[in-house]
Amino acid sequence: DAEWGTAIEPEAIRAIAKKTQPVKLIAIVHAETSTGVQQPIEPVSEIAKEFGALLLIDCVTSLGGIPVKADEWEADILYSGTQKCLSAPPGASPITLSEKAVQALSERKTLPNTWYLDLQKLEAYWDNRRAYHHTSPISMLYALHRALAITLTEGLENRWQRHERNGKALQKGLEALGLVLHAKEAVRLPVLTTVRIPEAVDGDLIKSELLANFSTEIAGGLGNLKGKIWRVGLMGESSTADNVLFFLSAFGLLLRKHGFKADVTAALESAAETLNV
Amino acid sequence: DAEWGTAIEPEAIRAIAKKTQPVKLIAIVHAETSTGVQQPIEPVSEIAKEFGALLLIDCVTSLGGIPVKADEWEADILYSGTQKCLSAPPGASPITLSEKAVQALSERKTLPNTWYLDLQKLEAYWDNRRAYHHTSPISMLYALHRALAITLTEGLENRWQRHERNGKALQKGLEALGLVLHAKEAVRLPVLTTVRIPEAVDGDLIKSELLANFSTEIAGGLGNLKGKIWRVGLMGESSTADNVLFFLSAFGLLLRKHGFKADVTAALESAAETLNV
Repeated sequence: DAEWGTAIEPEAIRAIAKKTQPVKLIAIVHAETSTGVQQPIEPVSEIAKEFGALLLIDCVTSLGGIPVKADEWEADILYSGTQKCLSAPPGASPITLSEKAVQALSERKTLPNTWYLDLQKLEAYWDNRRAYHHTSPISMLYALHRALAITLTEGLENRWQRHERNGKALQKGLEALGLVLHAKEAVRLPVLTTVRIPEAVDGDLIKSELLANFSTEIAGGLGNLKGKIWRVGLMGESSTADNVLFFLSAFGLLLRKHGFKADVTAALESAAETLNV
Repeated sequence: DAEWGTAIEPEAIRAIAKKTQPVKLIAIVHAETSTGVQQPIEPVSEIAKEFGALLLIDCVTSLGGIPVKADEWEADILYSGTQKCLSAPPGASPITLSEKAVQALSERKTLPNTWYLDLQKLEAYWDNRRAYHHTSPISMLYALHRALAITLTEGLENRWQRHERNGKALQKGLEALGLVLHAKEAVRLPVLTTVRIPEAVDGDLIKSELLANFSTEIAGGLGNLKGKIWRVGLMGESSTADNVLFFLSAFGLLLRKHGFKADVTAALESAAETLNV
């Protein structure tokens, strides 16, 4: 457990691992969408090696938006989603397994009681046995194929830079509006920004007016952060300079309408500086 | 267990139920795509009531093609797929649960160890709590919505009759070609026809030439029936009189080319009679 808004300290993971040896698997979320935090993976990977544990990384919100380095991190299981920074429709999960992970699956003694996500049965589907497991969601595969083509045409590094620049511009702009960002700066994600709802402002009202008046949807907080933060996504095709400027204008106007004296001009100038426009 | 090609005898189910009391759940496949058999559900429903068991019905291949009567059958869990007789893309599973089934879920003592298909967590998604479970495959939902609209525009009963008529025409035609159907006539599905591969014919070759020369894909047998039968689907938008006649022509030509003296004229006349064309 870490305070929501900070990354998990490697030392905390190491301490738990020590207490619970042997450690079979360490699981970590790379881009944490509840809090807007980017978890540094390298130190976690070190700990997994130290304890001979498999390393599982949830890259749902990071793949295609910020660097995901499955091989460098020596990830054993790494999965993502199609609907975040790849901008394909939701409905499929790209996944990759190391040979060590595949071996662990083949050696497990208690079999999974789910047919639905039985990775060994799924393996037989795509290896040279081509054994039928389920009917594939083919439209999803076409959509993902196209999304990957768009990603590679842009260039992965260009795409990372675009997400980084627009995320930073949005965050500078939100601060210039007079708002406080929830995630600590050092571990702040560019693709998902968490913003504290100022006292005396009705967060849900702003959220619903944004949608009704500006066709722009942001999310509320989950769990501990319910009612305390807004969550603003800036992923894939929607991560554009225009969207950053438009969002700051619309959001600022609504805040002012509801009594919070946001400085929209300052926000736009601050974002424009980062965007170099 | 039943012989592949026949339905499961209610008495066999009753005998097993007697031996294994108490019986929590009886599961049955309505339209069995490995064998082309339509399982009569009424007697199975009677047995479920008799033993106080929940009744689960797999209607993957029947929904939208042949009558599915969840309420009359007093089904407790009934699910289907989108990609069969509804002709939507694959990737989602319509499901319905009775109050008894929902209650059984809420009372279970061993919790499911799968988050992926935890029906209780999914319930919180769509009931008035609207609690987030997963990101919905929204394109699939739009596609399913459209497929259901098309289905209702045609009329469910018209759709059943269309599947029945075309399936019967195909089956008469295949017999007139000189082939033997695998499923017993009394329980033969109209939406999926199993055909025995004649000796001295290479089933895989015919299958691949059908695809290469006529852009028409049929399937081979599974399990016990591997290499012994072909499986011909006639579902949803593809269940048309034109497709029946075209398939019999193409299939007949290929059989003749590979040495089986199929009577294509007789096949077409036989199908045309059923089709009333």
